[in-house]
Amino acid sequence: MLFKVEMKVNIPHGMPADVAEEIKAREKAYAQELQTQGKWRHLWRVAASYANVSIFDVADNAELQELISGLPLFPYMDISVAPLCRHPSSIHEGDR
Amino acid sequence: MLFKVEMKVNIPHGMPADVAEEIKAREKAYAQELQTQGKWRHLWRVAASYANVSIFDVADNAELQELISGLPLFPYMDISVAPLCRHPSSIHEGDR
Amino acid sequence: MLFKVEMKVNIPHGMPADVAEEIKAREKAYAQELQTQGKWRHLWRVAASYANVSIFDVADNAELQELISGLPLFPYMDISVAPLCRHPSSIHEGDR
Amino acid sequence: MLFKVEMKVNIPHGMPADVAEEIKAREKAYAQELQTQGKWRHLWRVAASYANVSIFDVADNAELQELISGLPLFPYMDISVAPLCRHPSSIHEGDR
Amino acid sequence: MLFKVEMKVNIPHGMPADVAEEIKAREKAYAQELQTQGKWRHLWRVAASYANVSIFDVADNAELQELISGLPLFPYMDISVAPLCRHPSSIHEGDR
Amino acid sequence: MLFKVEMKVNIPHGMPADVAEEIKAREKAYAQELQTQGKWRHLWRVAASYANVSIFDVADNAELQELISGLPLFPYMDISVAPLCRHPSSIHEGDR
Amino acid sequence: MLFKVEMKVNIPHGMPADVAEEIKAREKAYAQELQTQGKWRHLWRVAASYANVSIFDVADNAELQELISGLPLFPYMDISVAPLCRHPSSIHEGDR
Amino acid sequence: MLFKVEMKVNIPHGMPADVAEEIKAREKAYAQELQTQGKWRHLWRVAASYANVSIFDVADNAELQELISGLPLFPYMDISVAPLCRHPSSIHEGDR
Amino acid sequence: MLFKVEMKVNIPHGMPADVAEEIKAREKAYAQELQTQGKWRHLWRVAASYANVSIFDVADNAELQELISGLPLFPYMDISVAPLCRHPSSIHEGDR
Amino acid sequence: MLFKVEMKVNIPHGMPADVAEEIKAREKAYAQELQTQGKWRHLWRVAASYANVSIFDVADNAELQELISGLPLFPYMDISVAPLCRHPSSIHEGDR
Repeated sequence: MLFKVEMKVNIPHGMPADVAEEIKAREKAYAQELQTQGKWRHLWRVAASYANVSIFDVADNAELQELISGLPLFPYMDISVAPLCRHPSSIHEGDR
Repeated sequence: MLFKVEMKVNIPHGMPADVAEEIKAREKAYAQELQTQGKWRHLWRVAASYANVSIFDVADNAELQELISGLPLFPYMDISVAPLCRHPSSIHEGDR
Repeated sequence: MLFKVEMKVNIPHGMPADVAEEIKAREKAYAQELQTQGKWRHLWRVAASYANVSIFDVADNAELQELISGLPLFPYMDISVAPLCRHPSSIHEGDR
Repeated sequence: MLFKVEMKVNIPHGMPADVAEEIKAREKAYAQELQTQGKWRHLWRVAASYANVSIFDVADNAELQELISGLPLFPYMDISVAPLCRHPSSIHEGDR
Repeated sequence: MLFKVEMKVNIPHGMPADVAEEIKAREKAYAQELQTQGKWRHLWRVAASYANVSIFDVADNAELQELISGLPLFPYMDISVAPLCRHPSSIHEGDR
Repeated sequence: MLFKVEMKVNIPHGMPADVAEEIKAREKAYAQELQTQGKWRHLWRVAASYANVSIFDVADNAELQELISGLPLFPYMDISVAPLCRHPSSIHEGDR
Repeated sequence: MLFKVEMKVNIPHGMPADVAEEIKAREKAYAQELQTQGKWRHLWRVAASYANVSIFDVADNAELQELISGLPLFPYMDISVAPLCRHPSSIHEGDR
Repeated sequence: MLFKVEMKVNIPHGMPADVAEEIKAREKAYAQELQTQGKWRHLWRVAASYANVSIFDVADNAELQELISGLPLFPYMDISVAPLCRHPSSIHEGDR
Repeated sequence: MLFKVEMKVNIPHGMPADVAEEIKAREKAYAQELQTQGKWRHLWRVAASYANVSIFDVADNAELQELISGLPLFPYMDISVAPLCRHPSSIHEGDR
Repeated sequence: MLFKVEMKVNIPHGMPADVAEEIKAREKAYAQELQTQGKWRHLWRVAASYANVSIFDVADNAELQELISGLPLFPYMDISVAPLCRHPSSIHEGDR
């Protein structure tokens, strides 16, 4: 089951650089692990921003909550979600 | 070059049903042709709405304008666009 | 899997009264059928409005889309959706 | 008398972790006590957020104010409220 | 139990003048009847607008819905509601 | 001359508790003095919030500014104002 | 007593040209009469729009309502109002 | 050439009182100097706020930028601007 | 003196196609005449929309109003304006 | 390929003046280098603000992201972007 997730990162200006770098490193590792597992199906940077557009493939809402709330940057992001499903005009098998 | 495009359809309440059906049929054919060409890479229905989330793969802004303004439903949609590019944490080759 | 769905009804002022009544009658029958099936778990009127707050219990996003887009009043409503899941502080078994 | 209450938690980034944990522990105990009393009828997590959707069952507006303003996280939440009542299409006795 | 209710009237431009006058006459009679009963406690015009600020005194949310949805202008108004209760700094007995 | 005034209190999270208590004590005394003078005609708590709805009765805009800007909590509140006047359907002499 | 009033004109597209012209002619005469009386103190066009910024000088809120609701274009305008008073840094006697 | 300028002051809560006073004193002197020069034609307090509505009379956009960005409170204000010009219904010579 | 002007076209759905075409033809001729005169310095389509971003070079606000309100599509557009001036970091002589 | 980019600068109030000056100096050098390269085609100050309107000329979305995210002020700006393309009514060869 797919969800579009948009994340906008807002690192507090007072956060020490090394703390921020450590969080970002964990975020990257976490994101790559979820991609490897097939749960984070797409991850794009929105050009000219510190934001991304993502497609998650999860079993249900509970797993979406578990994955998103586990993001190391979760406390520092504005996140919006849209539940997706198959479009009757789609010809791509994966666009379910 | 990828763009996220979101489209919300607002058919005027006074449009005759057969006119609406004819436009929707042309929209579907147009959408499937662009998918076949690889220009409309993903097309999802947003659940509980008459809206979609799409990923377009175009040569440049001009082609995006040409494709979107050619949609039979173009005069009846609210459309928003975000330019995408590769995210440094992506592991998917196609997420460029 | 639960979703909060909020619906605000906007009947066009020019719709003949008998047409509106017929649509509303079908809406009521449809809503009661889905409640009987257990898919429309709660349905409340928002006081001082022509709107409701609902809880849907569906198998997945696709079923949510199928049920909501089948509402006779679907073309005349503003609809917003939030995916729900279990809250760690809930003591109610049904609040999953 | 029922109210839909939506709460979005915004813990200040500078709050020490132990202070935050202590407040959250009190919040949980308070929430479970109100649920046991039947005043906090439903409590759901909104997936992919630090927010909830709740249904409160109170005697009147004054009790709603008393219960909500007593939340340990009250100073750190954006809260919105909608008064609910029976929907003419509801078949559930409890959806009053 | 008190509610602040704000109503903004939007008469459709195409409504015949006599139809509008008849609805407004019924609205006035209805408003004055509810004021006489003590249920519509205050009614003010917002200066420079076709809108009002009102205070309703009702038994519960259900009565608020019944009274507001019965307004002859109900289909033509944007309405917002806030539940009120006693303020700890109030010295007016009636500000409950 | 009446004005509806809505005030939402936002105490900065870093303000020491005793400073906040002292400001709130002065606010309460100030509010009660203005009520005694008849200038702050109504004061209600908005349920489930740290906000109020008030009706001020002042000689003119200048007095409104003087009274509101003198509130001890003035620097910590979002305030909105609507000028009121008699509604043609009001039957209450005081709703001027 | 001064008020800033902003008016944005939205003539319905279906209004016959001669009807619109007749309303605009009455609006102009009305506006000039109020200016002659000193009640409409300033009237500016907002460049690149069909909107104006105005300063009204009235006895009280009731007179503001009377003057604004009497505008021939009143049913076709979005109007917003701000109550003004003397600024402590003003050196202009008329900026009261 | 006239511009309507609206300024809302947001002094950071942590600014020491003497620093704030010094900035406000410079702001007042600057505002009065520009009024004396005829460039700040009107300056009104918006009642019940820490905000003003102003009319500037400048040679061009560049002078507007120079004057506004030179305000001692410039870093602490939300500012919005509307370019003004003569309204065809104005009878005041100065409303150009 | 430069202004950024953004225009979003909203042709009413009920306008006959030949009327729309005639207005658009006049719009194009008007736009090209103003470009030839040097007053409409830049004109870009916003990709995936029926909107443009433009740079106007005018003598003053009054000329901006004259040019924009003379657009054949003026009654059918949402228009927003920002006054521009030289940026201290610009190296382009024409970016004044 | 052109993009309109709007940037609003929000320097945190607590940033030391010399740190801010150093960042602004690097921003200016960076902006002028990109202008010299032809990638930052236009740069205007929005009058009465700490904001700019810019036109970027880049190879693709990825280059836009690279250039914008490299701005020394990037962490302190609200940035919005619109993809541009040739307008059918433009007569300027460069407005592509």
